[in-house]
Amino acid sequence: MKQNIYDNETFFTQYKQIRKRPYNYNNMLEQPNFLALLPSVVGKVMLDIGCGAGDFAAHCVKQGARHVTGIDISANMITAAKKHTDDNLHFEQIAFEDMPIQPESVDIVTSSLAFHYIADFDQLMEKISVLLRQDGILLFSMEHPISTANKGGDDWIKNEHGQITHFALDNYQSEGMRKENWLVDGVIMYHRTMATILNTLIHNGLSIENVVEPVPTEAVSELYPNIQKEFRRPSFLFIKARKMTDVKMLEERWT
Amino acid sequence: MKQNIYDNETFFTQYKQIRKRPYNYNNMLEQPNFLALLPSVVGKVMLDIGCGAGDFAAHCVKQGARHVTGIDISANMITAAKKHTDDNLHFEQIAFEDMPIQPESVDIVTSSLAFHYIADFDQLMEKISVLLRQDGILLFSMEHPISTANKGGDDWIKNEHGQITHFALDNYQSEGMRKENWLVDGVIMYHRTMATILNTLIHNGLSIENVVEPVPTEAVSELYPNIQKEFRRPSFLFIKARKMTDVKMLEERWT
Repeated sequence: MKQNIYDNETFFTQYKQIRKRPYNYNNMLEQPNFLALLPSVVGKVMLDIGCGAGDFAAHCVKQGARHVTGIDISANMITAAKKHTDDNLHFEQIAFEDMPIQPESVDIVTSSLAFHYIADFDQLMEKISVLLRQDGILLFSMEHPISTANKGGDDWIKNEHGQITHFALDNYQSEGMRKENWLVDGVIMYHRTMATILNTLIHNGLSIENVVEPVPTEAVSELYPNIQKEFRRPSFLFIKARKMTDVKMLEERWT
Repeated sequence: MKQNIYDNETFFTQYKQIRKRPYNYNNMLEQPNFLALLPSVVGKVMLDIGCGAGDFAAHCVKQGARHVTGIDISANMITAAKKHTDDNLHFEQIAFEDMPIQPESVDIVTSSLAFHYIADFDQLMEKISVLLRQDGILLFSMEHPISTANKGGDDWIKNEHGQITHFALDNYQSEGMRKENWLVDGVIMYHRTMATILNTLIHNGLSIENVVEPVPTEAVSELYPNIQKEFRRPSFLFIKARKMTDVKMLEERWT
């Protein structure tokens, strides 16, 4: 199922409000870690999956990327992204599932907080592996399995004084769809265990190079105390992986 | 700090009682998964770290391993292990930290539920990487980071009817020593995040091949209903990794 929640007007209006706030998880935690993990983009051909408003893609072109394609399922997002204009930037409203695959055509595939919306993680990783040149890099962030495990209910348990006592974890091994109430009711995401995520990369020829469960810096923790919950359990998972040299068999399936 | 809890008589007596029960986590969950992940041992030189009573080492020799060395810090355990006699089996009471290192001398390093007791995980992985031949395999199980995170307190939260509502997770990002009350007070183990565990292997030249967060089989779940909690959060983490071919720099430090 391809979910296009960012074209839900209620959702999109509220989402824009959050992103406008100076302190939000994207600006304070997700983006700094993403940029720190990004290899040099100079001269590289890149694909950004779930590019949103295209700021990251535009940043990469400014940093010297040869060409960046940003795709997103949302018309709202692609309309916003197209305000960035550069000959080396290309945006397209398409689901990754529907994108044509040209083997070994991309040096770096990136994706920021989108993969937890994709139902078929195995096919996603297979297609990325085929798209990547040998030694190419996949860098992505997604919701952490610890955070996606629960099936509804309160995540943060408080005592009678309103202080958080712990994070409620449950159903970790029950993979599959989760309906979350984030901005609107019934946003759909998919829970997968850490083992499933890692093994799916590996068996599709993507060798794990770095795993990050980010924590806020001290400065950010002071500016934005609410984010200190991240020390108690991680919201995000980042993985950087490299396409191994012997995955011809996979590629042949897509040519 | 090298902890030798298995030579604490109260602990060891109680530990033996648990292992004698037909249904315990070792027999029903840990060992079946460990054996399923083990590559062929035929003709291999092996080292088992924290070998306990030596049953696994003896099993490997029976399966055709050329030589298996089992080490354990506990005199109780090595005394028990030495009841297994075979020319290709060797047991020694020594902490891994004190073991002399001969580079590229071992084909398969194994360790079952011991690494959470070791304070310096980075040195542990470096030494294992140096010991392993190129393309050699490390297979280990340890307590899962989700399970080691909490600093005391109740792990399983129950409602007024005594039913478990969730697992209490906290302090995930605070790595370091944890004192647990398991059989006796003050058993020391070390909490590390999933990211730290994986990255420590990778930067020591050990490429991740498989990650398992085991769940009991249906048959085991019926026989031993208490183990069904494993579906709610994992107790154990298994990692299988392969020594990459370009870690000479590391080896030179130890020769």
